[in-house]
Amino acid sequence: MTSHTEQSAVTVLGLGPMGRALTGAFLDAGMRTTVWNRTPGKDRELVERGAVGARSPEAAVAASRLTVVCVVNYDAVDAIVRRGAVTDALKGRTVVNLTADTPDRARDTEAWAAEQGIGYLDGAIMTPTTTIGTPAAVFLHSGPEELYRQHRLALDALGGTHTHLGEEIGRAAAYDIALLDIFWTAMAGYAHALAVARAEGVSARELAPFAKGIGAILPPIFEQSAEEVDSGSFSGEGNPITSAVSSMAHIVHTSEAHGIDAGVMRAAEGLARRAIGRGHGTDGFLRITEILNPR
Amino acid sequence: MTSHTEQSAVTVLGLGPMGRALTGAFLDAGMRTTVWNRTPGKDRELVERGAVGARSPEAAVAASRLTVVCVVNYDAVDAIVRRGAVTDALKGRTVVNLTADTPDRARDTEAWAAEQGIGYLDGAIMTPTTTIGTPAAVFLHSGPEELYRQHRLALDALGGTHTHLGEEIGRAAAYDIALLDIFWTAMAGYAHALAVARAEGVSARELAPFAKGIGAILPPIFEQSAEEVDSGSFSGEGNPITSAVSSMAHIVHTSEAHGIDAGVMRAAEGLARRAIGRGHGTDGFLRITEILNPR
Repeated sequence: MTSHTEQSAVTVLGLGPMGRALTGAFLDAGMRTTVWNRTPGKDRELVERGAVGARSPEAAVAASRLTVVCVVNYDAVDAIVRRGAVTDALKGRTVVNLTADTPDRARDTEAWAAEQGIGYLDGAIMTPTTTIGTPAAVFLHSGPEELYRQHRLALDALGGTHTHLGEEIGRAAAYDIALLDIFWTAMAGYAHALAVARAEGVSARELAPFAKGIGAILPPIFEQSAEEVDSGSFSGEGNPITSAVSSMAHIVHTSEAHGIDAGVMRAAEGLARRAIGRGHGTDGFLRITEILNPR
Repeated sequence: MTSHTEQSAVTVLGLGPMGRALTGAFLDAGMRTTVWNRTPGKDRELVERGAVGARSPEAAVAASRLTVVCVVNYDAVDAIVRRGAVTDALKGRTVVNLTADTPDRARDTEAWAAEQGIGYLDGAIMTPTTTIGTPAAVFLHSGPEELYRQHRLALDALGGTHTHLGEEIGRAAAYDIALLDIFWTAMAGYAHALAVARAEGVSARELAPFAKGIGAILPPIFEQSAEEVDSGSFSGEGNPITSAVSSMAHIVHTSEAHGIDAGVMRAAEGLARRAIGRGHGTDGFLRITEILNPR
């Protein structure tokens, strides 16, 4: 078991907007927080608030039993931690990697950490920097449960909700990828809708209240359809995929008549037409999950 | 001005799931409702509830000053109303076309109606059949305001909120197209996310609570970004398009590593990369509206 003193010390590697937000939350929680960033100078404000600015990453990680890494991607993580002096300093300590990347990279990093005798937890931050330290923050974690429990107190200093998704190290990144997939695809849909609306003389401000209404119906649909998708039964329920394709064709037609690229919608329509071609025309639209990833 | 008696009679052409729901709401409101459907037999239950089943579309439209049409698309509308006997019977009366199609088709139908001396309003139903007759229904209308006012009382019998978007007849369809663009693109994102999650051993039920959370952050983003999009300024605000592209690349990589088609995300990523290539890397993601539809 680690002592309270050890629990209340943490190192943060990476002082981009998110790294700075994480450090601020640790400081606000009264933790001894050591920071380091590849390009110097980013720690100034944090040092003024009480952080300890380390001269090197090896010095930074040596200062705490727990190191939180939040940089641009795992190439950047590797460039910091997979160097002799830093790796040596990390042995017997724990890294919580809150950098975003793919599940495969998380698995590769866990394998490296195990070889080096470094405790490793992978995580994903699902909410913007402004939520860090507040109840609105959402963190996902994966890796050894015992290690997660040991550092839970420190992680709680970041505020919000923390969910341990399981011991398989790739899970946090897998959830992250899936959730960002929903987010960025929806945003691409919104951007396209605004482009088509503008071509039709409808401003974003005019469309916004109705767009908000469409956005609001998505969460219950996401929730209600999950069981259906897991069981592989896709009832059309008065909204069959043939009807979706009819709408999609109208969108593509109107978009392209205005010279607006409809590549995103064409790709989605193509998947739906493949589902229809395989005899699933009366099923619901989510039947395309089976086209994308057959069981 | 039309009398109360005339206001309280309506004809419904098309008795698919939505046409039946509309008819049910008119009947519940105590209106004399005449119905017709291309394939017979669909009116049985409605006639039991008090609807008048017409033998022909011309007889149907002759029974009321207001005819509501809700069929699969405007080809189907034309096949019913652009025939001598029906067109003749409609002269001097009003058609409210709640069929979904493109703004261009709405404009074409208005031109035809004007030539024939038929009053014409175009509309879109934004909510499922189950909402019709309830406060949850959302109807959009466009066309002559005076005509809309004359028939507002009858339309109110359908429940929900009715918004007259303007006299330009294509507006209801333009909003419809844009809103369905958001909806179906987001659904394609959800389907893809579920396919990738499953490949990573994450079930839809496991992902659903988090997917719901992502869905819930969309409406405020849609609303808050509208002004920015209208003014053509796209602040990155700690979430630049370069960061979006990094996430998108992780999604494409993870998807394709599992053999899952990433065409939708690849199309979205391509737009974002074009925005970056034009020097807008520090802007927010909605900069792609300008790539799609340059001012």
